[in-house]
Amino acid sequence: MLVVMGRHAGQKEIDEVVEKITSIGLRPHVIPGSTRTAIGITGNTGPIDPGILEIMPGVHEVIRVTRPYKLVSREVKQEDTRIEVGGVTFGGSGFVVIAGPCAVETETQTLETAKKVKSAGATLFRGGAFKPRTSPYSFQGLGEEGLKILAKVRREYGLPVVTEAIDVESVSLVEEYADVIQVGARNMQNFSLLKRVGRAQRAVLLKRGMSATVEELLMSAEYILSEGNYQVILCERGVRTFADHTRNTLDLSAIPAVKRLSHLPIIVDPSHGTGRRDKVPPMAMAGMAVGADGLMIEVHIDPDRALSDGPQSLYPQDFDRLMQRLRHLAMALDRSITE
Amino acid sequence: MLVVMGRHAGQKEIDEVVEKITSIGLRPHVIPGSTRTAIGITGNTGPIDPGILEIMPGVHEVIRVTRPYKLVSREVKQEDTRIEVGGVTFGGSGFVVIAGPCAVETETQTLETAKKVKSAGATLFRGGAFKPRTSPYSFQGLGEEGLKILAKVRREYGLPVVTEAIDVESVSLVEEYADVIQVGARNMQNFSLLKRVGRAQRAVLLKRGMSATVEELLMSAEYILSEGNYQVILCERGVRTFADHTRNTLDLSAIPAVKRLSHLPIIVDPSHGTGRRDKVPPMAMAGMAVGADGLMIEVHIDPDRALSDGPQSLYPQDFDRLMQRLRHLAMALDRSITE
Amino acid sequence: MLVVMGRHAGQKEIDEVVEKITSIGLRPHVIPGSTRTAIGITGNTGPIDPGILEIMPGVHEVIRVTRPYKLVSREVKQEDTRIEVGGVTFGGSGFVVIAGPCAVETETQTLETAKKVKSAGATLFRGGAFKPRTSPYSFQGLGEEGLKILAKVRREYGLPVVTEAIDVESVSLVEEYADVIQVGARNMQNFSLLKRVGRAQRAVLLKRGMSATVEELLMSAEYILSEGNYQVILCERGVRTFADHTRNTLDLSAIPAVKRLSHLPIIVDPSHGTGRRDKVPPMAMAGMAVGADGLMIEVHIDPDRALSDGPQSLYPQDFDRLMQRLRHLAMALDRSITE
Amino acid sequence: MLVVMGRHAGQKEIDEVVEKITSIGLRPHVIPGSTRTAIGITGNTGPIDPGILEIMPGVHEVIRVTRPYKLVSREVKQEDTRIEVGGVTFGGSGFVVIAGPCAVETETQTLETAKKVKSAGATLFRGGAFKPRTSPYSFQGLGEEGLKILAKVRREYGLPVVTEAIDVESVSLVEEYADVIQVGARNMQNFSLLKRVGRAQRAVLLKRGMSATVEELLMSAEYILSEGNYQVILCERGVRTFADHTRNTLDLSAIPAVKRLSHLPIIVDPSHGTGRRDKVPPMAMAGMAVGADGLMIEVHIDPDRALSDGPQSLYPQDFDRLMQRLRHLAMALDRSITE
Repeated sequence: MLVVMGRHAGQKEIDEVVEKITSIGLRPHVIPGSTRTAIGITGNTGPIDPGILEIMPGVHEVIRVTRPYKLVSREVKQEDTRIEVGGVTFGGSGFVVIAGPCAVETETQTLETAKKVKSAGATLFRGGAFKPRTSPYSFQGLGEEGLKILAKVRREYGLPVVTEAIDVESVSLVEEYADVIQVGARNMQNFSLLKRVGRAQRAVLLKRGMSATVEELLMSAEYILSEGNYQVILCERGVRTFADHTRNTLDLSAIPAVKRLSHLPIIVDPSHGTGRRDKVPPMAMAGMAVGADGLMIEVHIDPDRALSDGPQSLYPQDFDRLMQRLRHLAMALDRSITE
Repeated sequence: MLVVMGRHAGQKEIDEVVEKITSIGLRPHVIPGSTRTAIGITGNTGPIDPGILEIMPGVHEVIRVTRPYKLVSREVKQEDTRIEVGGVTFGGSGFVVIAGPCAVETETQTLETAKKVKSAGATLFRGGAFKPRTSPYSFQGLGEEGLKILAKVRREYGLPVVTEAIDVESVSLVEEYADVIQVGARNMQNFSLLKRVGRAQRAVLLKRGMSATVEELLMSAEYILSEGNYQVILCERGVRTFADHTRNTLDLSAIPAVKRLSHLPIIVDPSHGTGRRDKVPPMAMAGMAVGADGLMIEVHIDPDRALSDGPQSLYPQDFDRLMQRLRHLAMALDRSITE
Repeated sequence: MLVVMGRHAGQKEIDEVVEKITSIGLRPHVIPGSTRTAIGITGNTGPIDPGILEIMPGVHEVIRVTRPYKLVSREVKQEDTRIEVGGVTFGGSGFVVIAGPCAVETETQTLETAKKVKSAGATLFRGGAFKPRTSPYSFQGLGEEGLKILAKVRREYGLPVVTEAIDVESVSLVEEYADVIQVGARNMQNFSLLKRVGRAQRAVLLKRGMSATVEELLMSAEYILSEGNYQVILCERGVRTFADHTRNTLDLSAIPAVKRLSHLPIIVDPSHGTGRRDKVPPMAMAGMAVGADGLMIEVHIDPDRALSDGPQSLYPQDFDRLMQRLRHLAMALDRSITE
Repeated sequence: MLVVMGRHAGQKEIDEVVEKITSIGLRPHVIPGSTRTAIGITGNTGPIDPGILEIMPGVHEVIRVTRPYKLVSREVKQEDTRIEVGGVTFGGSGFVVIAGPCAVETETQTLETAKKVKSAGATLFRGGAFKPRTSPYSFQGLGEEGLKILAKVRREYGLPVVTEAIDVESVSLVEEYADVIQVGARNMQNFSLLKRVGRAQRAVLLKRGMSATVEELLMSAEYILSEGNYQVILCERGVRTFADHTRNTLDLSAIPAVKRLSHLPIIVDPSHGTGRRDKVPPMAMAGMAVGADGLMIEVHIDPDRALSDGPQSLYPQDFDRLMQRLRHLAMALDRSITE
């Protein structure tokens, strides 16, 4: 259920509706829009009688939300959501490029990569300090030490930082050091983690699971919004199929599908999405052309010695070349790469 | 790396090898066998020189483990592992049937179902107190109250209890009330959770993820064993494919595949594996014929009013009939259903 | 649309209904049942008024068929169809085992394999004379020479023969020499071929395509029946998924799914369905337990030198052992292996 | 095996090599290049001694081809193949747009659509006269009558025509009326059909099968080339996965994968690839950005009354708008849409 307030409704009327919703045991979510405010209602186990809200002052209409997800739905909020992270905006006409190594391995490797991607034009930096690895015997990341190196990247290069949290414990650490908390594909349906980042003070980058439908991706985002954190950026990173020329099958049609159903921004990760260095630039170009809000690309100063995901990491010079092509492409699409 | 001790090696010689392994910064895992003891070694980042161990007293041979998983591998332990839970043994010639509702909804519903499945011949009881749900607005389980109801089932009917833990927090509660901790399909690669149950004092039922390969399933089990908990039962519960006549595609060939690669027991969940009540009995029969160590089947006294997974739950009388057919089938396979 | 005749309707009344249907530009399909006859109607592009048929003498009722497939549907024919091939019956309580090499390579190899599988208890012989191969440079089969060898197998060992036709041309040859025409997985939607075998005088073994849904399999069978050939045996042979421990994922739940929707018999091919010799016996056992009407199993006297599919072919002694286990299993299921 | 002739080798030397290859029972395929000629060899069942060819006059070197496909491989031919159809070139810097209805329904519908797509800038016309349909009761195409209508489109609008052949019989008809013979996804491994179009005098458009790997697609193309027809255009049209927001999952990474392995041109079909009208324009844009050689797009003057695939057909005005966006995009990519 969604209460749409009239254009001229004031704060007092909004507060009264919020209070009314709370008083009948439900949960109000105030969603400010550019011309009017909407109030989403969750927590109902059965149908609610819209009448008791429709008659309240300032209420324009009360509409039933037909999708299983509510707060992330375009039915509830028609305009694209814009999310600001350290001066950079996701959503809208800008196009954000996040780059960096799969994992933070050493301070030198991280700072050198940051210098390279910054000069090539990346606007955010990525790097994993907590690595979810298939094998317990693989490199699991530097932990808090890695987070400190990331904080140094931000200080030295002015790049906001994206890094993954893998459990409730690591969220608190990531929240302290980073700008965006990443929830990885394997954790897309780790609902305890989703609820925890829903209470975090940082934007969340939520990656699609390897066999998740678009609806399931949106439902997972709904978990985060329903806890009060509306700063969610989605990410398509490839799904698992029979095809063997790439490590995953990057499903670019998910971008227009999400755009139709939801107001949240969505970016593309062609590095995990293909798992092969030579496929990253063409799929990055396609990701911009299909209408994504940005890209997340793995770059390593020495991919052949990377502790994880070397075969899909770009050399800095490849990334530089790709950025030039993307800038050119952006112009043809009436967009611009955010600097 | 695996150290195989001689048949006549004593505790003192085993202790010395363990000490040696620890002294060079690695982690020993003592794996007792029926005729000899083996000691698995993990924690090495590069190759180890087998010479320093081969010359020690009581050591029969030192072998390299070629699989990415080690402790779960048949290379490391040839005999089938048997896991005892409240007097019931998984692995070996017996066949264990776990039954119960998807979720613990009320005490009455749970106790009545327990009475029915007990009289039909089930030897363990299942029921979810913490439910991982795609939607934040769906019934999420009764939590600790549900666990108390499960404990009552054990007291009143003598059925050991299996129930899911969904995060590090819930493990402690489940550990206190239940006999087997279930890790669900969505959490198969929640590595923090795997490490936590690896330190639990209970057997773990680990379900295959929706798009997990058999190797990934074994790697996830390796996480648990590598923390010291060797009581792991695997479970095939269907994978996600294009096929639409069932909710998932139950991949029974995973049973002989796991049996070949690992010594751990594996059971089949035809309820989630098909998602359709009428497909459960034939796939349960097939699961026994293919060589699984048991079944986990959803039964509900009133499936049409179940709060979750009603369409795949059997009516008690269907379950009773199925148990009769399974007993008949077991005889032809020189097995018997554990009572 | 389906016209169900009364129990006492005679040939004359049936003929009149058939004539009436033809006169309005549609196509009648007489489907004799054990207690009454039904007449399926195809060829309509829009809805037909049932009134003109309901009033005819001998007509019991006229029912609308809701499935997209009609003649293969259980709505149209409730009893299981039984198909007799050279004295062997598919469908019903018997269980038919077809065995033989992937390809007919030489007369010696073929006759020796036939001798072995016959003595182990197989009731039909399989072997490819026309081989659809992924590469144009692979062995494509012996063609008509291979068919002559198969005819010799039938003469010498009394085993009816199943072999594949790969195009309209080869159907005529196969029809001349063999007892059952196989349509392979890659040709499941080769509609010209389906129409041609629909006019053949032989039973057809139709294999499920690698990414075909159960509904599509039934629609392809419908093509054959709609041309007048009602002798269709379906075959589950594995579908393509991400799983890599087998070559295909054998989807045994397709058996109860087909049994519910259609009256046609269905068998299981665990050889192509797994692609690995050691997985064939357990999946064959599971195939019987799940309720299939038979099995098709590849056996080769020298699998390591087979010109195709060696890794999935059983050694004759393995097949012999499997047959013993299947006979034992059949008893527990109140079935018997057809001899 | 591949014989690479020297830059200055003349026709006589080429002929002698061809003769030599034939004389030892193998099959030569002369592949002219811009600077030198290569001669592929197929038909060998075992290894060939390169010595007998290396010593011949004019031979530069003899190299082993390591891929299972040979003639389609970049190892054999490094330059992109260009295929000319009625004055339009596939391959190279141009970008070809094929448009038209799924099926030829009536002369009016077809000519009107042709007029619209011509004026919007399409350079080839598509339309099915033989329709492979899942159901035998669906519209199967107008057959030769449809081909005559397509010939009229070519006459009146100067648009070369692409249409599907579904069996050996229809190839002869299509060859007579059309410019490009399409082999549909369901027939990608109909090897008899591939061999037949390999002997046709027309270019072939080969669509990727629903569950075909890139290697299998190339092997199917190899069938056509090995029969002597080197005019093959490949087409990505989506594969079957669990994802349900589109009818198929359009796998754009297949484009760079094919480009790396083969010299053949490849286009994208976003209409079948998504099955949803609103996803066609973004995926068409992405298809150009990823590096495809062209697009094939379904356009219908009245999609809501189309006899097949209405939901994925663009309205003429949508197509017009898309063409404008593509032209703009092409400039940024240093390409141009072929007119």
